[in-house]
Formats: sequence, C-alpha cells, structure tokens
Amino acid sequence: MIKERLSKLRDLMKKYNITVYLIPGVDPHQSEYLPELWKRRHWISGFTGSAGDVVVTLDKAGLWTDSRYFLQAEEQLKGSTIDLFKVGLPETPSIEKWLYDNLTENDVVGFDPYLMTFSYFNELKSILDKKNIKLKSIDENLVDIIWTDQPDLPSDKVYLHDIKYSGESTQDKIKKIQKKLEELNQDVHIISSLDSIAWLYNIRSNDILYTPVVISYAAIEKDNAKLFVKLSKIDEATKKELGKDIQLYDYYKFSNYLKEINQKKLNVFLDKATATYKMVETLQNCNLYFAESPIVLFKAIKNDIQIEGFKNSHIRDGVAMVKFLYWLKNNIEKEKITEISASEKLKEFRAQQELFVDLSFETIAGYKEHGAIVHYTSSKETDVELKREGIFLIDSGGQYLDGTTDITRTIALGEPTSEQKKMFTLVLKGHIDLAITSFPVGTVGKQLDTIARKPLWDNGLNYGHGTGHGVGHFLGVHEGPHAISFYRCKGDALVPGMITSNEPGFYKAGEYGIRIENLVYVTEDRDKSSDEFKFYKFENLTMCPIDLNLINKSLLNKEEIDYLNKYHKEVYEKLSPFLNEEEKNWLKEKTRAI
Amino acid sequence: MIKERLSKLRDLMKKYNITVYLIPGVDPHQSEYLPELWKRRHWISGFTGSAGDVVVTLDKAGLWTDSRYFLQAEEQLKGSTIDLFKVGLPETPSIEKWLYDNLTENDVVGFDPYLMTFSYFNELKSILDKKNIKLKSIDENLVDIIWTDQPDLPSDKVYLHDIKYSGESTQDKIKKIQKKLEELNQDVHIISSLDSIAWLYNIRSNDILYTPVVISYAAIEKDNAKLFVKLSKIDEATKKELGKDIQLYDYYKFSNYLKEINQKKLNVFLDKATATYKMVETLQNCNLYFAESPIVLFKAIKNDIQIEGFKNSHIRDGVAMVKFLYWLKNNIEKEKITEISASEKLKEFRAQQELFVDLSFETIAGYKEHGAIVHYTSSKETDVELKREGIFLIDSGGQYLDGTTDITRTIALGEPTSEQKKMFTLVLKGHIDLAITSFPVGTVGKQLDTIARKPLWDNGLNYGHGTGHGVGHFLGVHEGPHAISFYRCKGDALVPGMITSNEPGFYKAGEYGIRIENLVYVTEDRDKSSDEFKFYKFENLTMCPIDLNLINKSLLNKEEIDYLNKYHKEVYEKLSPFLNEEEKNWLKEKTRAI
Repeated sequence: MIKERLSKLRDLMKKYNITVYLIPGVDPHQSEYLPELWKRRHWISGFTGSAGDVVVTLDKAGLWTDSRYFLQAEEQLKGSTIDLFKVGLPETPSIEKWLYDNLTENDVVGFDPYLMTFSYFNELKSILDKKNIKLKSIDENLVDIIWTDQPDLPSDKVYLHDIKYSGESTQDKIKKIQKKLEELNQDVHIISSLDSIAWLYNIRSNDILYTPVVISYAAIEKDNAKLFVKLSKIDEATKKELGKDIQLYDYYKFSNYLKEINQKKLNVFLDKATATYKMVETLQNCNLYFAESPIVLFKAIKNDIQIEGFKNSHIRDGVAMVKFLYWLKNNIEKEKITEISASEKLKEFRAQQELFVDLSFETIAGYKEHGAIVHYTSSKETDVELKREGIFLIDSGGQYLDGTTDITRTIALGEPTSEQKKMFTLVLKGHIDLAITSFPVGTVGKQLDTIARKPLWDNGLNYGHGTGHGVGHFLGVHEGPHAISFYRCKGDALVPGMITSNEPGFYKAGEYGIRIENLVYVTEDRDKSSDEFKFYKFENLTMCPIDLNLINKSLLNKEEIDYLNKYHKEVYEKLSPFLNEEEKNWLKEKTRAI
Repeated sequence: MIKERLSKLRDLMKKYNITVYLIPGVDPHQSEYLPELWKRRHWISGFTGSAGDVVVTLDKAGLWTDSRYFLQAEEQLKGSTIDLFKVGLPETPSIEKWLYDNLTENDVVGFDPYLMTFSYFNELKSILDKKNIKLKSIDENLVDIIWTDQPDLPSDKVYLHDIKYSGESTQDKIKKIQKKLEELNQDVHIISSLDSIAWLYNIRSNDILYTPVVISYAAIEKDNAKLFVKLSKIDEATKKELGKDIQLYDYYKFSNYLKEINQKKLNVFLDKATATYKMVETLQNCNLYFAESPIVLFKAIKNDIQIEGFKNSHIRDGVAMVKFLYWLKNNIEKEKITEISASEKLKEFRAQQELFVDLSFETIAGYKEHGAIVHYTSSKETDVELKREGIFLIDSGGQYLDGTTDITRTIALGEPTSEQKKMFTLVLKGHIDLAITSFPVGTVGKQLDTIARKPLWDNGLNYGHGTGHGVGHFLGVHEGPHAISFYRCKGDALVPGMITSNEPGFYKAGEYGIRIENLVYVTEDRDKSSDEFKFYKFENLTMCPIDLNLINKSLLNKEEIDYLNKYHKEVYEKLSPFLNEEEKNWLKEKTRAI
C-alpha cells in the first residue's frame, strides 16, 4: 500500500518537474500534535510516531526520526521501501546534509510552502545553493492530491475559556498586543500558532488530541482583531460573545487576507519561529518584521487566577493519582492489571474529578525494562501484566478547565534492589536540589539543569532528556519560551508566574527506568532577596507521594530529608480531605516523615 | 581639544552628506586590544577604556560603555560635550535603539566598512529600515582624515613560534584548513582575526600590548597559503623560513587580493564573527559561506606539547607569585608599597623567569574597596599604600613562550573579619566545587557556571561576571569558542585540551573584593567514564597557595577540604625546588593541611 502511494507520488513529482519532495511531519501551524487531515507523513509512510520527516526522490525514500521511535519506525517501515535515518546518531546525516550529499545541480527539491517555515527555508537554501540545487515551492500539497479519503477540517464546536479560569479578558489581551504593535511601529501581527490563538481569544476546542486548541489563524491590527476559523464550529451564542472583540472569517479566507494586506503594503510583524514561506511569499510588498511573538511570553507568565487554578487542579489530580496508587497496590495480582489497563484506570480516576476535560498527553506506563524507554507507549503488542516485583514508571497528566497537569511517579511493586534504591535516590537528590534552589533574576533554565544532574554526574551517570519544560494553562503540556534543559540554548529567563516541570531520571536499558516529575511555578524568594540581589525560587504544584520504599536515606543530606518530609506533610494535608478512610490511612503511611 | 576634533568631524560629515557617524572602539581585525593607530574612538572622545563606541550627530555625541568604565568615562568626558550612555542599565538604550528613536527618514548614518562586521551591519539595517533611515558606507575613515599625527602600522619584527612550543608545524595546520575547504566545497578561507593568523602560521610580534600577535590578513586557498603583512617587519631569515609554506604580500595588498578573487567568482568561506561589511561588499560576485572559522576550535584544543608548556610555564609563574607574596608579607609597612609598586614588583619576579616575554594583561591590583571594582586599574590618582590590614586582590598573568598565565589571589594583609572569611570561603567553595566536577561529553560551560555560583546563591549572593574564559597559547588571554559563563549562550562544548579559567568572586562595593582564579585544562575522567557515559574533568595548571587565613573551615565539606589539602601539597611539591630556604619555609606553612 505504501509502495503504491509512493509510486503515485513519484508520478506527480514528474508532472511537477521535481526530483525530490519533502513531506515534513508538521502542519501549517507548526503544532506538536496534528489533526487527522494533516497527518500526511503518516499516510505516505505508515509511520505513526509524533515526530518524523519523509524525503522522497524518484528512486529512494527516507524517514528521519529520533531515538524515541527507532524500534517503532523499523517495524512500521518494513516492506515500505523507505529507509530509516536515525536522528541523533553520529553517522546519521541531517536531511539538509543528505540532500546536499546526494543531489546534483539538476535536481529540484519540491516543498509545500504552507508547511515550511521561512527560517528553515533560508537555512536549507543556504546549504543547497552551494551546489546550485534548486528549491521549488508548490502550492498544492502532492500528498493531498493522491490521498482521496483525506479527512476534512475537524467540526468540533469552539467554546469560550471563562475568565474565572483564564483570569484575563480577551479585550485586555488584544490591547496588550496592540500596544506592542505601536511600540514596534507595526500595522499588524499575524499569528498561526494554535496555542497562542487559543490563549489570546480565550477559546478552546477538541480539534487536536490532548491539546484543546482551535484550528485557526489570527491577525491583530491596530484597531481590530481577526480570527480565521471554520465558521460552522461556532454556535450563535459563542459568535455573539466573540463578536464583541473579534471579527470572524472563514479559515480559508486567510490567504485572501494576506493578499489584501500585501496590496496595502503594511508593516507586518511575523513570528520568527512559525511564519511560513507562503506567508512571506504572499507578503512581498510588505515591510516584514521577524521576532518572537509577544504572545509567547505573555502566555507563559501565568496570572494569579491561573496559578490558583493550577494549584486547585493539581490537588484534584493528586487525589486521582493517590486513589490510583492505592487501588494498584491492593489489586495487583488479584485482578489482571497491565500497563494499558492501569493507564485506563488512572484515566477513570481523573475523569471523576471536577473540571476534567481530557488527558494532557498519552500516558507513559512502563513496567520493568519498558520504563527505560523514555517515550514508551504501551501497545497491544508490548503490553505486559504488572506483578508484585520490579519498578513501574507512570508519566501522565490531565487537562482541567483550571489547569494542566503532568506528573511522573516511579514505584516499587516488590522489594527493590539496593542498586535500584541508589539510582532512585540519586534522581530524587537531583529533583530535590532543583526544587529548593534559589536563583537570581535573569537565570535561564539551562543554568539550573546542571543542579538536577549533579548527583548523577558525581556517580558517572546521566540522563538523555531535558529536566523541565513549560506547561500551558489548559493548553499544550509543552510550551516555551523557557525550558530547563541542556538542549535549549535560547531559553528565556525564568520569571515569577512561569510553570516548569522538574523531572530528572535514570534509565538502565533492558532493566528499569526511573523518573520523578513535579510541576512547579516560579515565585519571588523574599528571604534570599536583598537590595542588591533579587532571588526567585520554585513552589510545588504537584501533590503526590514519592515512593519511600525506593529511598536509600543514607544518600540524602539533612536539607534533602527536611524537604521530603515537608513536601509529604503538605501532600497529606492537601489531599486527605478528599480521600476515604482507607485511602487516607494509606496516604498517611506513604507520607510519613523519614 | 575634543570639541575642536568633533567640530572638524562634523564639517567632514556635512561634506560626505551624512548626519550621523559611527566610531566603534574596534579595529579591522575585531581585536580585544588595539594598536595605537586604530585607537580612533579614544582620539575623538578622550576616553581610554578598552571598550566603548562613539556616535556623533550634527549636534550631539554619545559614548556607550559598560559598568567597568562608568567612573572613568564620566571623568574623561568632562567638557567634551559627549554624553555618557551607561550600557547595562535598564534605562540605557542600545546604540541601535537610540539611533532608531532619535533619527528620522532624512538621516544618513555613515560608517567605516572596514570596521563594521557584516553581521552587525545586517542587525543595524534591519532596525533602521523600519524607519527608512539610511546607512552609508564610507571607505575613508573620517577620524583618520582629521587625525594628522596618527601613528603608522607598528614596525616590530615578526618572529617564529618554535614548534618545540607550538607542537604543530605551519604546514600541518594549513593542511587541516585545506581539508576543511574541500569538505565544504570552498575555494578560499579568509582570516582577519590576529590570534587565528598567529596560531595558523606560528608567528608572533609585539604589535599589540599583552597579546603577541602580528597585524595581518591571511587567506588559505586549496593549494597555497597567503599572508598580508607589513613586509619590513620580516627579516630575511624569517622570510626564508616562512616562505617554505606561505606566500607573503604587503598588508595593504589585501584589498586588491579580494578584488581578484571576486573577479574569479570563487566560493569564499568567511568567518561569521569577524567578516566585515567591506569584505562582503568587495566579494559581491563570489558565493559566500558564513560560518565560524575552523581555526577557532583548532586553536582552542591544545596539543600535548602545548599542555606540557602550559604546565611548565605555570610552575615558573607560580614561583614568581610565591616570591612576590613572600616579599609582600615581609616588606609591607617596612617600605612604601602601593597597588602600582606591588604590580611592578610582581612583574619583576615574572621577568626573572625563563621564557618570559611580557604580561598577558594589565595587572589588576585592588586594595580594600578597590578590589570591589571588577576591572580596576590603579592609576596615579587612585593608587594607595598597602597596610597590615584589609584585603588585597591581585589578578595578573604572563606571556611565556611555552604558555600564557592568568591568576587571581585574594589575601588578607591583616586579621580578616568573620564576614570576610565567610564570603571568601563561599567563593572558595564555588571554586573547588567547579574544580572537582566531572561532566559528561557535550557539556558546555554555561551548564557548569552554576556550580561555582551555587554556594553564593544559597546565601542570596552572586557575582556579576563570568566564571571562566578560554586562554590562548602564548596568545590572547581571552579566547573562545568556549566559556564558563551565564552570558554566553553559544559556548562550544568543553573537550580535552581546552583551557579555561575558574574564577568565581564576590564584591562588596566600597569595602572589598574577593576572587580566586586558577587556570585548568580539560581531560578525560577515566574513573567516572563507562561504556555508556564518557566523562571529562578539570586539572589545575595554576600553582599558588590560597590564603588559609581567609578560610572559615566550618563552611567547607570534607570533599572540599580534601581537595584544598591535596592542591596545596601539589603546589609545595612543584614550586619548592625553585625557592630559597626562607621562601620554602614560608610556602610550607602557607600550604599546610587544614
């Protein structure tokens, strides 16, 4: 089937006079998760992972994906004639390098200008120019032409995110952007990032799994605000409410709108990270200004009402987690519990909580050696039963109207080995050391990442992922502009109101995985601050016990033990009012001082 | 005088039809320290600091400089009609912002295309374009036209840096660059950074204070290597030796050379950081490739012979330091010793050492409150006598044929207060914690910077400078591409053979300054490395005692105490063979185990 699709694509490529076609795993909005109609890379290759790009030439095809998906991709590409390129291995060329190495002056690389960002276009062009390899923008997506039963845009209704949760009116948000336009001497700001639009207009929908955004474009002009969206998604009442602040247009009228502002030769502010080649091509008469959209930072700094909602949703989420852990503890080996059924049970507990809407991402439930696969997703083929032995890692989260959660707990289902206890305690030390850090104004996440790794480094160990990511408010579970990571160079400075995860880990391939993750928010540290130095610190949002059975207390210092006991005391106080007697007693034991 | 110069400059500006002229504090080679003839910003403004840019309009003039020079600039600008812009204060606009805010469409900003990098030109243009403010490149430097007694290019002889010190032949270095050219499909690599050229061709001279470089340009083509240099600087023997590998041309023939390669339409590899607007303008028919010059990394990774030389030069430098400290201890209040005379005495001790050529930077000798001024330079006006009280900070270094040194010691001249001991010990903790850190392959300096700051952060304190900089081999005392700093985002990963300083500090304005600085080199940590994780660590180069009188031992943990005792033992073993009996006894006491 894949072979047939590739063959049809190659026929089209010849018709369009191109020798290479790029099929990136993105949508026109540069989303992390895609709606069905834009899963073109999946359709052409059969590969279902969340990250991966395909390149098709007249006689070859390749998929580039990262280590999370090496096994899955190998499996899914079998018989497809598509080669797997393992991103991150030293021997693997980047797509750009591969194109440069394998193409000649006669080659023409076709691409969809709605999918390629202008910044990536420039990067690619600067490389291919060196060999005079041409790039050709083709408005029609070639996969769409052959994908006869491609779904339509989602029809789910748009709903408003109440100001009692968002804490800021749409009107006020629009005014903030308009003030920026004035400062920057720009006429209009174009926004294509779905989470930015959802934040700006206080709207949500179910267009994309796990992230309650609305497929749309937005434009803020000096004296008005526009939303381009499938109009049938908006009922009359919502239309009336939205219409107070916003002009509504059909989603597909966005192209015309760009042409109009091009004729007017406006000064246009485009978001550097997400502006597409198509936008820039259309706006050729305009003065273009590229920078990070101010929405990115506005959205990341939560207001007091949002922080309050985060705290409340984390208590409910903690109650669900504790009920789940208590149930697991009591029913393991009594009934058949597998990675998948445990995940489903946890979802049930979450769904019983108020204001719950959906999960915030696909639950990672990794038993024993599966825990060592960082982005493991249990499937029918890999699912295993949990027993009274070994280590179980569960990373999950919920979307609540008042906040988004993301928590990882690692628990011993039997008696852990002393090695496992040592590794868990080293990870816990890093987690705690980061949690109790104070840091001066201007500190970026990359500087703090080291603190969480240090206990592992001291033992010649490490983990291969970042330590923290921003989290949206009833929006994407991953958001910028900050991050606690050695990867990210350009992470913005942490400021009060930002949310980040704190999730160091350790993974022993083939045996077990350990990760301890809380969400925290940044706040001022009044004790450490002075006239000369202003300091910030973290406060926990996540409320859920950390498995004492996995701790080797002798490896913790006094400060770390104090923190743990204080955290557990807070967990008990906040969650116990919502638990029954047995659960309460169990939690009391699980949060005892050590 | 300054007013007259500005008035002449403004007459010229009118003649050239510009309303603004930029006088940056740089030379055509983007050097850190400038030769006399290119100190144009100094000449036009009277300001002698090492960093600062001047902007002159038809009725205003401003100097932009950083906090190191606020006091000095205020003093030196008195009566000049030049306004001081204090870079780094929240209320101070950048030059670009100031131009944007203060100019209109009718303004034309003139600049010297030999001084402006192409990357800065693009940055500036993108800002000024928004208001249609024009930029005009003017080949003649307008300051040069009115600076009638401007010095000529320095005439100091060029000499070869012997392979017994450099450890790698010129021929081999050239071949490495030519290999890169081939890989990148480029015809020629243009180099204007003086330390890169000195490294590449194993040449040195005295053109610039403290940094033994040769004012020149270089071009590496596929089959030859060119050096553009004032030919009278090279005597016959050197010419013969250099001529084996390099074609020599006059310095001012470089412009013609660029025109020639432009006619040939070559593929030209320019260094992103230092390529000037003039180069790009001249090479308009060429295919230009912008990236970091491969020399930057080659130069930073020292070979075994260079590391050996670094070790040896640091022993000699340590001997000079110990002799100085012993002399100071015994002569203070016996003879009149001031910040300046102490610095001169230290230079004498260094000059007695083998292979000594010069200091590697201007000594910072800060007594009491002067120590809190991070880049303090003692002058006749500020010089004070040292007494048997207070804290003395001395930051100094030497250029030896086999290595470059940079060391800071802070010593108590009397009985320190308990606050001073606490602060010194916190700084020492950071210094030691960084010194004993192991870190995995791929770690960049920014990640390690936090380790040195953590003990201060834990007490609500911090310091405002980076923790470590690269050091050239008998070259610039500051070099990239790595750095241990919160400032630098793009610092390269640390790899074995790199040198860095380890220099945390604490500064109490108006009272005292503390800094402890060793140079270290990166090497593999075989104890911590495993098949899965490869770890690196630091080894000390600097050999000189750390003042035990300033330590509050109760604030150090066991690991830190062990390190200190081991370090002091090594210092004694390495330096004592070169000391007389009294000095030896004194050092024994100063390096005693605590």
